[in-house]
Amino acid sequence: MHRSHHHFGWDNAIAPVLEVEPGDEVEFEVLDASGGQLRKDSTSEDVARLDFDRVNPVTGPVYVKGARPGDALEVEILGFGPASWGWTAIIPGFGLLADEFPEPYLKTWDLSQGRAEFAHGIEVPIRPFPGTIGVALAEPGRHSIVPPRQNGGNMDIRHLTQGARLILPVWVEGALFSVGDTHAAQGDGEVCGTAIEASMTIAVRFRLHRGEAPAEPEYVLPGGRPEADAKGYHVTTGFSPDLREAARKAVRFQIEHLVRRYGLSREEAYALASVAVDLRISEVVDAPNWLVSAFLPLSIFR
Amino acid sequence: MHRSHHHFGWDNAIAPVLEVEPGDEVEFEVLDASGGQLRKDSTSEDVARLDFDRVNPVTGPVYVKGARPGDALEVEILGFGPASWGWTAIIPGFGLLADEFPEPYLKTWDLSQGRAEFAHGIEVPIRPFPGTIGVALAEPGRHSIVPPRQNGGNMDIRHLTQGARLILPVWVEGALFSVGDTHAAQGDGEVCGTAIEASMTIAVRFRLHRGEAPAEPEYVLPGGRPEADAKGYHVTTGFSPDLREAARKAVRFQIEHLVRRYGLSREEAYALASVAVDLRISEVVDAPNWLVSAFLPLSIFR
Repeated sequence: MHRSHHHFGWDNAIAPVLEVEPGDEVEFEVLDASGGQLRKDSTSEDVARLDFDRVNPVTGPVYVKGARPGDALEVEILGFGPASWGWTAIIPGFGLLADEFPEPYLKTWDLSQGRAEFAHGIEVPIRPFPGTIGVALAEPGRHSIVPPRQNGGNMDIRHLTQGARLILPVWVEGALFSVGDTHAAQGDGEVCGTAIEASMTIAVRFRLHRGEAPAEPEYVLPGGRPEADAKGYHVTTGFSPDLREAARKAVRFQIEHLVRRYGLSREEAYALASVAVDLRISEVVDAPNWLVSAFLPLSIFR
Repeated sequence: MHRSHHHFGWDNAIAPVLEVEPGDEVEFEVLDASGGQLRKDSTSEDVARLDFDRVNPVTGPVYVKGARPGDALEVEILGFGPASWGWTAIIPGFGLLADEFPEPYLKTWDLSQGRAEFAHGIEVPIRPFPGTIGVALAEPGRHSIVPPRQNGGNMDIRHLTQGARLILPVWVEGALFSVGDTHAAQGDGEVCGTAIEASMTIAVRFRLHRGEAPAEPEYVLPGGRPEADAKGYHVTTGFSPDLREAARKAVRFQIEHLVRRYGLSREEAYALASVAVDLRISEVVDAPNWLVSAFLPLSIFR
């Protein structure tokens, strides 16, 4: 899907630009989070001049035939096209330490050789993923793209790389899926508010699970990759303006998953989570909603 | 050091039971977090009867010769003796979801075969570490052992396994180091409030770095182990009754480390942290202080 098919904010009244069947693969061209406002030769002065009405465009929406509220939309991340360059900015008023970093800052990255060198002797491994990926909300009207919600959205989960499967609850007929904000790399938290922001293509495959909507997005990671459990992870997420409440939700959803999937009692699930589930801060900058992921390693199951 | 040399709470007036030189190795016998109140045949009714004045004993204190306020005490984790059994409890009023789990619960684990089976088909890998490890505070009087602080303490950092090096600020002459609360395994967060609590021995080596005290505890992890960066991590921590503020502190300390160690500007360090540093919730249950760790992967440096 061409990058010209993009929109700003979540609004279930936006007409779909493509209809697909469950099982279909779709490739999206994604604009960078500045919507083309920043270029490879931009400076920190251009950061100060950013028009926020044009940030974080998402490509879509895609109508998935048969998808109804209450269904789960599975989005498998198949792969990414290469990015030629990227940027990382400190944007005044934005980020975990916004009060301590009042001045704009811009770093541009040459990614054309498949490497991301920050400075001489410092290289960040390229691990592309979509920062924003989600479906339309049930509530009418336009909703800001910035905070993640029960529709996914700007979750900035750095683990949604090739092979990951994101499970989104469907809120409206056809789901109305969109994706954007591709990142070449990011740490858990995205602390300064931006990642290696880069325009690129992303290919996904859709699947539909009738009536299996999770309360909030979950994801499944394969094993056999860096920092991964040998068999991968089942991950639940929780969002909230309060980071501890986000952690509480992610743990609650993981307990429900353990009870439902493995037949444990709630108390068993809670205790098992305490000894085996890892809490990671996915993002703590997309105001007003922070996101915590609870990682269940699958190799504990024989 | 024998387990009979234990104390409750942090109090810099407690006389040391051993004096060591920097470079010395010391083995500690550690009581489990119940201080022997729970046994392998205990039930959830015993959890309800726990005497909290006797929980979380720590073995020590050890006087490290030459240690003075402002120094950094490095504690290298050399290894652990085997544990024969362990326990995991839901303690009413304690834990991330305390309001949702009002009833006591107890799971005991047979660890005598070097395995931790939760139930048929569910096995948690054994990764021993000390839940509580720290030095005396500068402030006089007895301070509860429960919340972690600038002296370390009940940090419940599950990554302090064999080979890790913990860097503690020294607050009083001789540092007055103690360790306890050994865990056979735990997830990041320790969500129900307890890990696989188990009595065992731990061996450590002390080193002293004159005048290099970090503001709060930091740690260095080697590479080449599960979930680890190939070259390991330099990790900063932040504690606070507010989880987001704990994250802010951990990031601030990581920025200071990047500036000091690699000569980056503050803005460069903040941006690099955003694309390469991972935020993990180490514990969110040791009221009133939660702990966030910021993981800097060392393989980004050539």
